[in-house]
Amino acid sequence: MALVVQKYGGSSVGDAERIKRVAERIVATRKAGNDVVVVVSAMGDTTDELLDLANQVSPLPPGRELDMLLTSGERISMALLAMAIHNLGYEARSYTGSQAGVITTSVHGKARIIDVTPGRLKTALDEGAIAIVAGFQGVSQDTKDITTLGRGGSDTTAVALAAALHADVCEIYTDVDGVFSADPRIVPDAKKLDTITYEEMLEMAATGAKVLMLRCVEYARRFNMPIHVRSSYTNKPGTMVSGSMEDLPVEQALITGVAHDRSEAKITIVGAPDEPGTSAAIFRAVADAEMNIDMIVQNNSTEGTGRTDISFTLPKEDGAAAMAALQRVQEKVGFKGLLFDDHIGKVSLVGAGMRSHPGVTAIFCEALASAGVNIEIISTSEIRISVVCRDTDLDAAVRAIHDAFELGGDEEAVVYAGTGR
Amino acid sequence: MALVVQKYGGSSVGDAERIKRVAERIVATRKAGNDVVVVVSAMGDTTDELLDLANQVSPLPPGRELDMLLTSGERISMALLAMAIHNLGYEARSYTGSQAGVITTSVHGKARIIDVTPGRLKTALDEGAIAIVAGFQGVSQDTKDITTLGRGGSDTTAVALAAALHADVCEIYTDVDGVFSADPRIVPDAKKLDTITYEEMLEMAATGAKVLMLRCVEYARRFNMPIHVRSSYTNKPGTMVSGSMEDLPVEQALITGVAHDRSEAKITIVGAPDEPGTSAAIFRAVADAEMNIDMIVQNNSTEGTGRTDISFTLPKEDGAAAMAALQRVQEKVGFKGLLFDDHIGKVSLVGAGMRSHPGVTAIFCEALASAGVNIEIISTSEIRISVVCRDTDLDAAVRAIHDAFELGGDEEAVVYAGTGR
Repeated sequence: MALVVQKYGGSSVGDAERIKRVAERIVATRKAGNDVVVVVSAMGDTTDELLDLANQVSPLPPGRELDMLLTSGERISMALLAMAIHNLGYEARSYTGSQAGVITTSVHGKARIIDVTPGRLKTALDEGAIAIVAGFQGVSQDTKDITTLGRGGSDTTAVALAAALHADVCEIYTDVDGVFSADPRIVPDAKKLDTITYEEMLEMAATGAKVLMLRCVEYARRFNMPIHVRSSYTNKPGTMVSGSMEDLPVEQALITGVAHDRSEAKITIVGAPDEPGTSAAIFRAVADAEMNIDMIVQNNSTEGTGRTDISFTLPKEDGAAAMAALQRVQEKVGFKGLLFDDHIGKVSLVGAGMRSHPGVTAIFCEALASAGVNIEIISTSEIRISVVCRDTDLDAAVRAIHDAFELGGDEEAVVYAGTGR
Repeated sequence: MALVVQKYGGSSVGDAERIKRVAERIVATRKAGNDVVVVVSAMGDTTDELLDLANQVSPLPPGRELDMLLTSGERISMALLAMAIHNLGYEARSYTGSQAGVITTSVHGKARIIDVTPGRLKTALDEGAIAIVAGFQGVSQDTKDITTLGRGGSDTTAVALAAALHADVCEIYTDVDGVFSADPRIVPDAKKLDTITYEEMLEMAATGAKVLMLRCVEYARRFNMPIHVRSSYTNKPGTMVSGSMEDLPVEQALITGVAHDRSEAKITIVGAPDEPGTSAAIFRAVADAEMNIDMIVQNNSTEGTGRTDISFTLPKEDGAAAMAALQRVQEKVGFKGLLFDDHIGKVSLVGAGMRSHPGVTAIFCEALASAGVNIEIISTSEIRISVVCRDTDLDAAVRAIHDAFELGGDEEAVVYAGTGR
């Protein structure tokens, strides 16, 4: 008998009908002889509706209370899902993050999981019940207050519970058939990947593939927990995320896929003194404002001026705060001006085979050139190349690279609407 | 410094605007130098909406999961209320029933409070915070599962917390100005009572006065906790429920008020054998179906037939099940038929002075006769007379009795819409 942890996102449990379908799938897994633990997100738009209520009451709600509010979303979906399973003749019990033993830091809104003590879940399984757990939430170790885990929190809950319970697999149900060689909405012949290593998945997630969040993949890699990403609308196998690059057979495909990202903006510091300490002062200012920066490029000093331009990318929503932080240090650092550009896109090529094939970068750049896409910033890792281009060129860039590396499959990918948290 | 426990019902926190008004009232109480603990119900229609969702998923949802679902209602309102208080510059922390130490039996949907261990509330108060507690819910002592307390649960939560914290007063905010000598919607000159004893309030609640639920008054009497029933729309003092009849001064008003009830139905067992054991068999059948019966009347045996009619009243919603239970024993008991009548009303007169004034019953019946109201069943306690009449006669009956005992005040009562749980 295997132990399967399943995670269903908000769109999978968006209304009563969908909840009943998910219940059928869970019961089918149970009937096949598995112990089942299910992690569930809040129904469809619940979280947005609750946030809207909070904003009506207070412009800056305290984190503790916002977490208390938002965690009611999963409470609703998990209780309804347990009811639907009961209705099919199987015992199911719902548990809040706190009851399931998800112990976190006390940073409200983006707590991190410290420990998982799933005693009540084990008891439920021993008694033959299916355990339904609220995703996205836990209880802080210090204050015993209810916390939420922030973006990707439900996926992380699922992986963390799977690791703590020594599950055989963690199935993440989503609205796509798995991880694709590119976004099927942009590249119609994008191919579903049957397997992908943790490292490749990390690079794909970090560069914009939305199917799995970075932290969830990091957690899975740390505990070596296989993740099966699959669709809640079909019974087809999805993509198995597991194993290390080191274990890949030599004949493994060179390239995994193309990821893209429209969520970033670019800030350019114009005319900064080309001397030691300038970059340090600039990035200290941004770091102190708690911004995460992504790619950085520093031009060669314009001859004779002793000055240079420095550009970096960061999430669009952090743009305003970063500009303000930089403006405050302008005089001290001595740069001439600041530019903000949120019409950029980023396209990345990921593949474990890349590191031993120096020709990849050349093919990559030639493909972009043929498609008439201008490269503004370029950065690479051992298994990834990323470039920044105009946002209007992004779709063409994704298609050109996908074609150049012959990543396409034979059939068109099916695309569903909606996404969960 | 006094400790005040306040309870706000669902209509008082029905939307963001009302939540902000309630927050202002709470802060005013805090500013006046009091420690404040607030018990809050779910917003307006939340509970009905959640029940509707449950019914879409399962025709007979398990009690444990229904309680898990419904308790999300208070979670939402309490977090929003805490945010609104923060926004006014005061520290507020919300607590679920479980976190507040409300320990209950494990009967889902109608759990009873066994114990209250408000350690976290005390800490919050000691640290200068206002504590907001979810009404209507607790955690079962045996299973550690979340429970709900059923009807009147939020009021009972407030009284129980007030008793456990040795509060000075428990204020129950509602949509009327207090307890009235009759329902102001029927009797325009009904008078707000300044004080009422626990015993009188119990009789009023038991006979249809909806402002306080029976179990909450029982709890308050047991712990001798004064309840101040008042309006959340004004600052006027309401009605203080406290003290025993035994302590009333001799010159205390004879009569407290008139209560009425439209929620009952009458079942008549026709042609039952007039012999020992008949009533026992009938009421055993009803009791085994877990019905609560209220008033009972048995006619004298019709001369020569050896048969009699027995009527009793019970909540309308239990009518169908009671009829079915009786039908199953018809052959064994040997009665001729069953009648069901849900067009009845019940009017009651309550007053601590009644027991020493035998003339009350006469005035009561004369008033009904003058108003042309026919009495179908009559029952009395030491401080109450109740009669069943046609439901169409009920308003006239209430007014006639209210007039006959000169219970009216000088000003018209203000009536607000809505009610909480």
